[in-house]
Amino acid sequence: MNDIVDHRIRRTWTPEGASAAELPAKALRWLSERIGPLTPETAEQAVAPDSAIAVPVSGLPADAAADLLAVVGRENVLDDRAERLGRAGGLSYLDLIRRRHPALGLAVPDAVVLPADPDEVQRVLEVCTAHDVGVVPFGGGTSVVGGVNALRGSKESVIALDLARLDRLVSVDPVSRTAVLQAGVRGPEAERLLALHGFTLGHVPQSFERATIGGFAATRSAGQASSGYGRFEDMVTGVRLATPRGQWRLGAAPASAAGPDLRQLAVGSEGALGVITEVEVRVRPLPGVERYEAFVLNGWQQGSAAVRAMAQAGLLADITRLSDSEETEVSLSLNSGWKIFALRRYLAARGVGEPCLLVLGWHGSSRGRIAERRRRTVRLLRAAGAVSIGTAPGESWRRGRFHGPRQRDALMEHGVCVETLETATYWSSLDRLRDEVRAALRGALPSGAVVMCHISHAYETGASLYFTTLAARDGADPVGQWERAKAAASRAISEGQDRPLGTISHHHAVGVDHAPYLGAEIGELGLQVLRAVKATVDPEGILNPGKLLEQDPADGRAWIRD
Amino acid sequence: MNDIVDHRIRRTWTPEGASAAELPAKALRWLSERIGPLTPETAEQAVAPDSAIAVPVSGLPADAAADLLAVVGRENVLDDRAERLGRAGGLSYLDLIRRRHPALGLAVPDAVVLPADPDEVQRVLEVCTAHDVGVVPFGGGTSVVGGVNALRGSKESVIALDLARLDRLVSVDPVSRTAVLQAGVRGPEAERLLALHGFTLGHVPQSFERATIGGFAATRSAGQASSGYGRFEDMVTGVRLATPRGQWRLGAAPASAAGPDLRQLAVGSEGALGVITEVEVRVRPLPGVERYEAFVLNGWQQGSAAVRAMAQAGLLADITRLSDSEETEVSLSLNSGWKIFALRRYLAARGVGEPCLLVLGWHGSSRGRIAERRRRTVRLLRAAGAVSIGTAPGESWRRGRFHGPRQRDALMEHGVCVETLETATYWSSLDRLRDEVRAALRGALPSGAVVMCHISHAYETGASLYFTTLAARDGADPVGQWERAKAAASRAISEGQDRPLGTISHHHAVGVDHAPYLGAEIGELGLQVLRAVKATVDPEGILNPGKLLEQDPADGRAWIRD
Repeated sequence: MNDIVDHRIRRTWTPEGASAAELPAKALRWLSERIGPLTPETAEQAVAPDSAIAVPVSGLPADAAADLLAVVGRENVLDDRAERLGRAGGLSYLDLIRRRHPALGLAVPDAVVLPADPDEVQRVLEVCTAHDVGVVPFGGGTSVVGGVNALRGSKESVIALDLARLDRLVSVDPVSRTAVLQAGVRGPEAERLLALHGFTLGHVPQSFERATIGGFAATRSAGQASSGYGRFEDMVTGVRLATPRGQWRLGAAPASAAGPDLRQLAVGSEGALGVITEVEVRVRPLPGVERYEAFVLNGWQQGSAAVRAMAQAGLLADITRLSDSEETEVSLSLNSGWKIFALRRYLAARGVGEPCLLVLGWHGSSRGRIAERRRRTVRLLRAAGAVSIGTAPGESWRRGRFHGPRQRDALMEHGVCVETLETATYWSSLDRLRDEVRAALRGALPSGAVVMCHISHAYETGASLYFTTLAARDGADPVGQWERAKAAASRAISEGQDRPLGTISHHHAVGVDHAPYLGAEIGELGLQVLRAVKATVDPEGILNPGKLLEQDPADGRAWIRD
Repeated sequence: MNDIVDHRIRRTWTPEGASAAELPAKALRWLSERIGPLTPETAEQAVAPDSAIAVPVSGLPADAAADLLAVVGRENVLDDRAERLGRAGGLSYLDLIRRRHPALGLAVPDAVVLPADPDEVQRVLEVCTAHDVGVVPFGGGTSVVGGVNALRGSKESVIALDLARLDRLVSVDPVSRTAVLQAGVRGPEAERLLALHGFTLGHVPQSFERATIGGFAATRSAGQASSGYGRFEDMVTGVRLATPRGQWRLGAAPASAAGPDLRQLAVGSEGALGVITEVEVRVRPLPGVERYEAFVLNGWQQGSAAVRAMAQAGLLADITRLSDSEETEVSLSLNSGWKIFALRRYLAARGVGEPCLLVLGWHGSSRGRIAERRRRTVRLLRAAGAVSIGTAPGESWRRGRFHGPRQRDALMEHGVCVETLETATYWSSLDRLRDEVRAALRGALPSGAVVMCHISHAYETGASLYFTTLAARDGADPVGQWERAKAAASRAISEGQDRPLGTISHHHAVGVDHAPYLGAEIGELGLQVLRAVKATVDPEGILNPGKLLEQDPADGRAWIRD
């Protein structure tokens, strides 16, 4: 079984046992020059004990608690404050800010329930339906869009349904190259279990260390190696869900024309249309060899054109990631691992005035196989004006590939307003989307704010854009500061005539934060369709209240219980 | 605008202008030896004039007709018998049999309505909703599962909504490599229009000559080159539908995590959840070079293992098609184009006692590029025991790639019970699925029946199986004969514990014929979800009555109007 990760309230992303990021003095100096003087958090804010946070008494009705105990056993219904606080939402910047400022209010579940297997999950849902208790499915708790906030909606009480005990590799089919994993298996554990059979999933989002298989499916996750292994929905061949109307299995064949693909309704359902309990995934042989390297292109136009050419020629590396010049500049300024001066001179000598870093990662069965693929890509990149800067910066990226959230932890302690958001669109709209989101964020954040962008996932017809912002935090209203910036960016993304300029989320999901913008993307009819599906599988509306679909205004309740 | 293909009742698939297939004397001799004496159809059955078929007077209410005229113009509401008969269903064996035996009854629409564009389609739906008239969206009319039969369901009358006038290429985005095509554009016309811009869709199902873009999307079609270009749903980036609840656009980005992918609800909706009016597709540059070739493997096990190895190594040709030894034997027996004796000697000398034909088709920008891809595939195939038989049999397959339905026409005239069915499953179940479907068909058809099978589409995790049967027709009950065989095969496919052995359709769709088996695949909850979606977008239930979802037994009406 998984270690059930720290039950303490998560004031940071950094998983227990992982090393916390430290910001070198050079980085702090650069930052304060760019965004203005930093106001480090007080020790109290950053590491205050749980006891500093007011937690209401559990509102779970005694009869509901008794029925839940009967299903999962006494030791698997937890209602002490530490356990409840440990599942009080996800890990967005605002989630972490709220935990530093208890007065802002925190939605805490009334209890934590840990079923052992899919059948127990089913029975828990039946109990909660009978007692009208809300259910927040909880995997790794890494949502950055409010997806696991313990909202009550119209319910008097809500439980966190923690899937940590669903931690098994159920079966492997080496002939079909599929495997069934339970929903609560975390990324590293999934890889460990599959590696025993010689396989890998190849799904490595930044949340990899904590996030779970069920969460990947529920949110349409996309990993860093999506160009090689596909998005998570491309890997899912079957899904098993528990719903208040019974268990539901989908996926009879690798491909089918038997009506609409309902797997694609389960994938992305965000706990609102069912609790994913098992996922059947396509697996691949472990790569024998990996190679990471970097190139530099001169300016965003040249860089994005090169990535487009790679995508449209079928020549993407398994990991293909292009930073704009602002993000590249920050990497050069903050990264102590590279020989920066030499690099700058090298690039300047080659006429690269506005360096954009392109990281490529190759997975292959052999060096020869990688060399064969790489040869054509490098030829294309050279023709596009790319300058190779070797394997060291690629390896540096690989080593730090999961460190983004830890760096955010460190930056937050230094009083920085630091957050990311992401979108995607077609190639012909990509520059406009980038321009408009940058302008929206710059307009809403204090002058000096850093807005960086990279392409993290490329397709034949378009690409994702991932933005990171660094700004001086508004100590008086840190929540309002980011909410305004996020709203400006979301409006820029959602504007458009026949369709929005981009999708409101390429791989973070809808959760609470993006729900107001979903209608721009799927239409009022699309919202009605999703509501009808929800009413069918969850007629009492117990599942993940207030997520994916906007809270019905008629429900009216404030989402924070006090 | 498209030529609106022959309005005469379709007693054959063969499109006007296309050459009808002729069966060489050798083939007929072989057939009668295998399946028993043939009883050719009478000239009356095969080519009887439309006037031999009783067609009821149009039941379209006069006020509905007037409102439809107001939308589309007088010349686009057709109610003469020839036009109505021309849209009396699709092109399955049973559709064609019923038209040869008018006494068996034929569902004929009350009128044919031809809107000019998506907005007119929308207004036609509004009129039909107001007057409670059923609507059968009609594209190429090539359904082989009853998908365009003019069933009435609970309605008094039904129109065929012919999309032939929606025949435009709306836009091309060469940067994003996408194009918007109206739903009524047929396969060859789509390719002609895209070729003017240097692009191809690469979607070539056997129905290519007649079928439409809207039909491809509505049925989750898969073309012969699906290994290279993907299934049709992989090509769809956006969809525009008309529904009784308004127009609906889906597809904001190449990929998205904004909740469930509702595009995948529109794709495969079979006219029951909306009328697809425009489809945005991913396009690719026209291949400069094509190459077709063939290999032979020794027995099904060796052949399917080779295709699996290709699929799992990412080494499929764009067209990859493996026939079992029975199908290969029939090809060798019927095909006059090959030097059969020499070929048999050649294979025997190489120890191939049970030849299974593997056809590969390569599309590429250059000979060099094809050679590069091909080299690795051929290496793998040689290691798997494959024997190359050169390009001639590959070219022969290419020339005849759309002739299957025409050969069926010819075989039907010779009194043969000839039909196909298809499914797909995971690799580890593929042999069992093939065995059980073959046994089911053999058990239900007269002794001597030929049951052939091929893999037409391969994936990393599994493959499709496509069966063709030839049997002596039961002249007294031709419908019952095939219905029993089809039911036996469908039961074999749908059996299973947690999930069926295979999908009830890999690329033919559900229509009427597969509706009873859909529940085995998506569960009772899946059926309820689809019904809820339908009730949301089509509350009056006017759209394609009796398709996709089984006719509500409470509706009760016989589907044939008399």
